[in-house]
Amino acid sequence: MPLTTLFEEAKDAVEGVLHHALANPDVPTPLLEAMVASVKNGGKRLRPMLTLACANLFQVPKAEAARVGAAIEMVHCYSLIHDDLPAMDNADLRRGRPSCWREFGEATAILAGDSLLPLAFEVLADKATHPSPTVRLSLITALAASSGAAGMAGGQMLDLSPHLIHSVETATTMQNLKTGCLIAFSCEAGAILAEAPLEDRERLRRFGFLLGLAYQIQDDLLDIEGNATELGKPIGMDGEKRSLVALLGPVESKRSLRTLQDDMFHLMRPYRQPLFEEIIAWVTTRRG
Amino acid sequence: MPLTTLFEEAKDAVEGVLHHALANPDVPTPLLEAMVASVKNGGKRLRPMLTLACANLFQVPKAEAARVGAAIEMVHCYSLIHDDLPAMDNADLRRGRPSCWREFGEATAILAGDSLLPLAFEVLADKATHPSPTVRLSLITALAASSGAAGMAGGQMLDLSPHLIHSVETATTMQNLKTGCLIAFSCEAGAILAEAPLEDRERLRRFGFLLGLAYQIQDDLLDIEGNATELGKPIGMDGEKRSLVALLGPVESKRSLRTLQDDMFHLMRPYRQPLFEEIIAWVTTRRG
Repeated sequence: MPLTTLFEEAKDAVEGVLHHALANPDVPTPLLEAMVASVKNGGKRLRPMLTLACANLFQVPKAEAARVGAAIEMVHCYSLIHDDLPAMDNADLRRGRPSCWREFGEATAILAGDSLLPLAFEVLADKATHPSPTVRLSLITALAASSGAAGMAGGQMLDLSPHLIHSVETATTMQNLKTGCLIAFSCEAGAILAEAPLEDRERLRRFGFLLGLAYQIQDDLLDIEGNATELGKPIGMDGEKRSLVALLGPVESKRSLRTLQDDMFHLMRPYRQPLFEEIIAWVTTRRG
Repeated sequence: MPLTTLFEEAKDAVEGVLHHALANPDVPTPLLEAMVASVKNGGKRLRPMLTLACANLFQVPKAEAARVGAAIEMVHCYSLIHDDLPAMDNADLRRGRPSCWREFGEATAILAGDSLLPLAFEVLADKATHPSPTVRLSLITALAASSGAAGMAGGQMLDLSPHLIHSVETATTMQNLKTGCLIAFSCEAGAILAEAPLEDRERLRRFGFLLGLAYQIQDDLLDIEGNATELGKPIGMDGEKRSLVALLGPVESKRSLRTLQDDMFHLMRPYRQPLFEEIIAWVTTRRG
């Protein structure tokens, strides 16, 4: 299956689950509207695509992977809603639309994020996600760790503390927590659903972290090129935040991207799946 | 066991679990400090006391009830942190101390709340909470529903929308969502841990909702008396918010409190536990 087809499949499957999970007449209207709008404005659905791809390595039913992908999207969307708040990144726009707090007000946006997080755990805990209770608990534990204080929320804390990001090492830690943990879980989840050996879980998890870093470096490089040509901003400075690319510089960043690419190819070779070569190539060379 | 002893036992047991769960060296310092400070500034630990009392009806080990109580306290503390934010209730103080956002800044407070929520699910998913995976999943599902958009977060949304609270019925719904759901879960959890018949789950859940309403009415009545004598504020108006007591008036509120008291006695009579008579009397007559 080519990557574009997989992206489409993941989008359709995950949006079906999201639609169903959000159809709750007991939720006050303004809150539900904010949740639905945020989840619909979802972008490429990179994380669910990865869950479907990794689950497919072990012939896990697509419906199960789609439910996990939907839970991950809920957590991802909640994090974007909160990151955009005035007290955080103070962003007016998200993917070309008004950000949640801009459209629905700050209080509603905070509560929409607060509501998407437990909903993700509700989806994972449901029988439909996997027949085995132990598997569902493993998914819950891993998602909780990935999204909490030693994961995504901790990463956002570091990202808001530029004085703590003073080296390539600390910038890598920040990135691994802020975006890496959830992408790593998106991949690892395929092996959890398959009850695959621990070695596979760890391999896919490691692949996710490398992919997350590569994605971010390519993102920052595209930013720089955009800024340098379109805005004339100094290279690699995204406000006060210090990205990995800002610390490495563009030449080292491109070298680092090639190393990550090689490491990912090496890591995924045992599965003999051309799809992953396509995923790796897409992440490291995409232009938008 | 007298109620004061149970309160002390619950406090000690739950704080032990909280201390252990928050000892994570991978959490960035400012975030961990905000989480710990909020969880430590914990008040009476009413909810864990209820979990211990209800679990004890079925001889559930105290250590299991304490873990569920700690998870509930995490969710309760997170909700207080977010409720105090400038965009919500804009509260400077919480239990006589600076509120989380006042002490640690708004961004850190948002993230501290965001981190306590998944940690609660991590605690519930752990084997130490109960040997049966199915029981742990039931706890997770019930806590997620109680804290989400059709529970606590939805209730806070209604509480921030005074135009939606125009009758005793809507004010009751708001209160049931905002505080009732989590108190109901605190009670129901005892029956879930015991794998007791559904009838017990439902009875304890219903008891929790009644207790939550009674607690809130008594709280509002104490507020009115305080305001009327100390501040001379108009009776029952807490800012723009319309409480149940504001809609009922003090005379009807006291009558309603007596009805709730009777209903609770009736509901809990089959368990023949004098402790619950003490709990009901305490909630409906306390002076602070």
